[in-house]
Amino acid sequence: MEECKPVLNTGLRGVVIADTRICEVDGANGRLIYRGYLVQDLAENASFEEVAYLLLYEKLPENAELEEFKRRLLAERHLPPAVIEVLKNRPKDALPMDILQAAVPLLAHHDPDKKDQSREAVLRMAVRLIAKFSTIVAAWDRIRNGKEPVEPSADLDHAANFLYMLSGKVPDEDMGRFLDKALVLHAEHSFNASTFAAREVASTRAHIYAAITAAVGSLSGDLHGGANTRVMEMLFKIGSVDKVRDYVNQEFDAGRVIFGLGHAVYDTDDPRAYIIASMSKVLEERIGKTKWYEISAELDKIGKEEFKKRKGREIYVNVDFYSGSLYNSLGIPIDLFTPVFAISRIAGWCAHVVEEQFAGAAPKPTLYRPESEYIGDYCGPDVCEYTPIDER
Amino acid sequence: MEECKPVLNTGLRGVVIADTRICEVDGANGRLIYRGYLVQDLAENASFEEVAYLLLYEKLPENAELEEFKRRLLAERHLPPAVIEVLKNRPKDALPMDILQAAVPLLAHHDPDKKDQSREAVLRMAVRLIAKFSTIVAAWDRIRNGKEPVEPSADLDHAANFLYMLSGKVPDEDMGRFLDKALVLHAEHSFNASTFAAREVASTRAHIYAAITAAVGSLSGDLHGGANTRVMEMLFKIGSVDKVRDYVNQEFDAGRVIFGLGHAVYDTDDPRAYIIASMSKVLEERIGKTKWYEISAELDKIGKEEFKKRKGREIYVNVDFYSGSLYNSLGIPIDLFTPVFAISRIAGWCAHVVEEQFAGAAPKPTLYRPESEYIGDYCGPDVCEYTPIDER
Repeated sequence: MEECKPVLNTGLRGVVIADTRICEVDGANGRLIYRGYLVQDLAENASFEEVAYLLLYEKLPENAELEEFKRRLLAERHLPPAVIEVLKNRPKDALPMDILQAAVPLLAHHDPDKKDQSREAVLRMAVRLIAKFSTIVAAWDRIRNGKEPVEPSADLDHAANFLYMLSGKVPDEDMGRFLDKALVLHAEHSFNASTFAAREVASTRAHIYAAITAAVGSLSGDLHGGANTRVMEMLFKIGSVDKVRDYVNQEFDAGRVIFGLGHAVYDTDDPRAYIIASMSKVLEERIGKTKWYEISAELDKIGKEEFKKRKGREIYVNVDFYSGSLYNSLGIPIDLFTPVFAISRIAGWCAHVVEEQFAGAAPKPTLYRPESEYIGDYCGPDVCEYTPIDER
Repeated sequence: MEECKPVLNTGLRGVVIADTRICEVDGANGRLIYRGYLVQDLAENASFEEVAYLLLYEKLPENAELEEFKRRLLAERHLPPAVIEVLKNRPKDALPMDILQAAVPLLAHHDPDKKDQSREAVLRMAVRLIAKFSTIVAAWDRIRNGKEPVEPSADLDHAANFLYMLSGKVPDEDMGRFLDKALVLHAEHSFNASTFAAREVASTRAHIYAAITAAVGSLSGDLHGGANTRVMEMLFKIGSVDKVRDYVNQEFDAGRVIFGLGHAVYDTDDPRAYIIASMSKVLEERIGKTKWYEISAELDKIGKEEFKKRKGREIYVNVDFYSGSLYNSLGIPIDLFTPVFAISRIAGWCAHVVEEQFAGAAPKPTLYRPESEYIGDYCGPDVCEYTPIDER
């Protein structure tokens, strides 16, 4: 009998619940692997579209395959006019993640494949979801600001098209490429909370829209996708480089954390963090305002030093630490940081839904149905006797 | 070290992941307990409103508390006019569970408490969700049939009001009471797949609407909330009592299951099944068409006999076995059976979200984050080298 980790009330930490061919998070060595490929190699060489293809179809595409895949994504970028109408009907202060969570089942209403449980149908719906996610987020930002949504451009790649739909201006090459890299870096991360939510729902044989809707909800939580937003809010609060040391001491003194420092999974710096940092630096230098990058870099240095001094061990930056300032210099509003995370992670979520429902090799569960331990001692060890309401 | 059950690819079956004060499913003895009370005692004595109070507030209400709770539910039954407009904008062939899944985040957009993470705010939102679920389902059924939604009636209890909003006619006392009992019987069932989905999302500190939206998605799966629908479809297919034996033999010969026979959790008849059966019988006798009850009862008898003969062990009916024919005789369309399940289970889901986010006694996880085992041998044991696209 192998050693048993305690499972009760630990959020399944350290419990290996399934095998997967999609992703490995090698926390000890700081390696993140998508279907055999190191994430830094993909960020360096491949576009988001290519990586989405890899995640869905389990191999890097050849030229003709990638062209066909991009053509399909392009054809699916638009939203049904009735869904645009719904977005226009929504209260302007609705939270962007709540808008996205509503939009996914709204799209299901229009999808002719939703009752088809074949692998091919699920992959068709996945392509639609990957294509439309960025359109939803951009359209909502326009609408809440009293502007008309910008029609997707057939001349731009996925990342650049998002920035175009957001601002109405074609972004320059660096901006498109940097967002593209950020999307590659966030596309997949094994059984994190939102991916697990998608798989859990998919395991009941619910359709992919239902599963992705759950993932969006999970990502909306402060402890999950909200982290990059909180990093940016922290940078705003600190305000200048000379205030970093005081801030770090004040937070550690109060027993609080520095957002973006520390990760549940990596025992090293997150392999994605410094790729994002370098893009953030280049972009800020270009616009001549390097403030947020500088505060981040100082916070990175002092936060690590101070943590080591106090706790006697290392702490590392995670992917959220620099992504906030990158998104900020791309002109993305702070409350869209988590939706931008979703625009990328939708590729990984879809791959996991397909694997959950169609994995060939390993025997898959019918559905996730854990047990719980009842500690409701309302009437001692026995059940309660029902007392009529007038006698209570 | 205690004995370890294998966890990998088993859907967490038999793995105790958390403690709970809400519910015990005592499968060995066929007992279902909501916060200390046997479900049959509650079905016999308490209304759905009283049981919802018990689940949310951990005790049976006194008279004044129940009156106040009912008054709050009553005040929250209506939908925002903008949400009714969205329902009118939806394709008429949208699936009712997909409508419900969209409606929950749409309601979040209007809720002033959605950013308040206090227990009190979560309970206020829970009351709104419990009150509005039946209104959404009834309004959608009216709208898809080209009718105006029926305004909720302030004179009717929760169950009777649903039937009224569905048909536009005040149901008689039996019908209201029987649906009320069915809602009590379905209100809670520990860590089933949809409840687990709600808890998983809630564990990220996402708001209750995001968590409930995930639960709706999970319930929409054929393997979960779709089961009662499939039982009714099976009864339609069998068509008459004399065809039951042939049907059972044909299905078992082909290695298929009889829907509604067998349960992952109970080693006895489901304690809820025969309470529902007796109501179904009474209602069908009253309208003078006892066909579906009779087919069900015959299928129950022959299915069990034949299973025993073939497998040498017992099989038992589950809650879905008779609920289909009950809902059918209440005039509920077959594709609303799963939404009616949701109208009831929303009470349990909300209690679990509150417990996940605010349980006092036990240390709670920050969020669910299981591990997976990577078996992606795309390039042998090592990572793949990235090949430029033109060289593939």
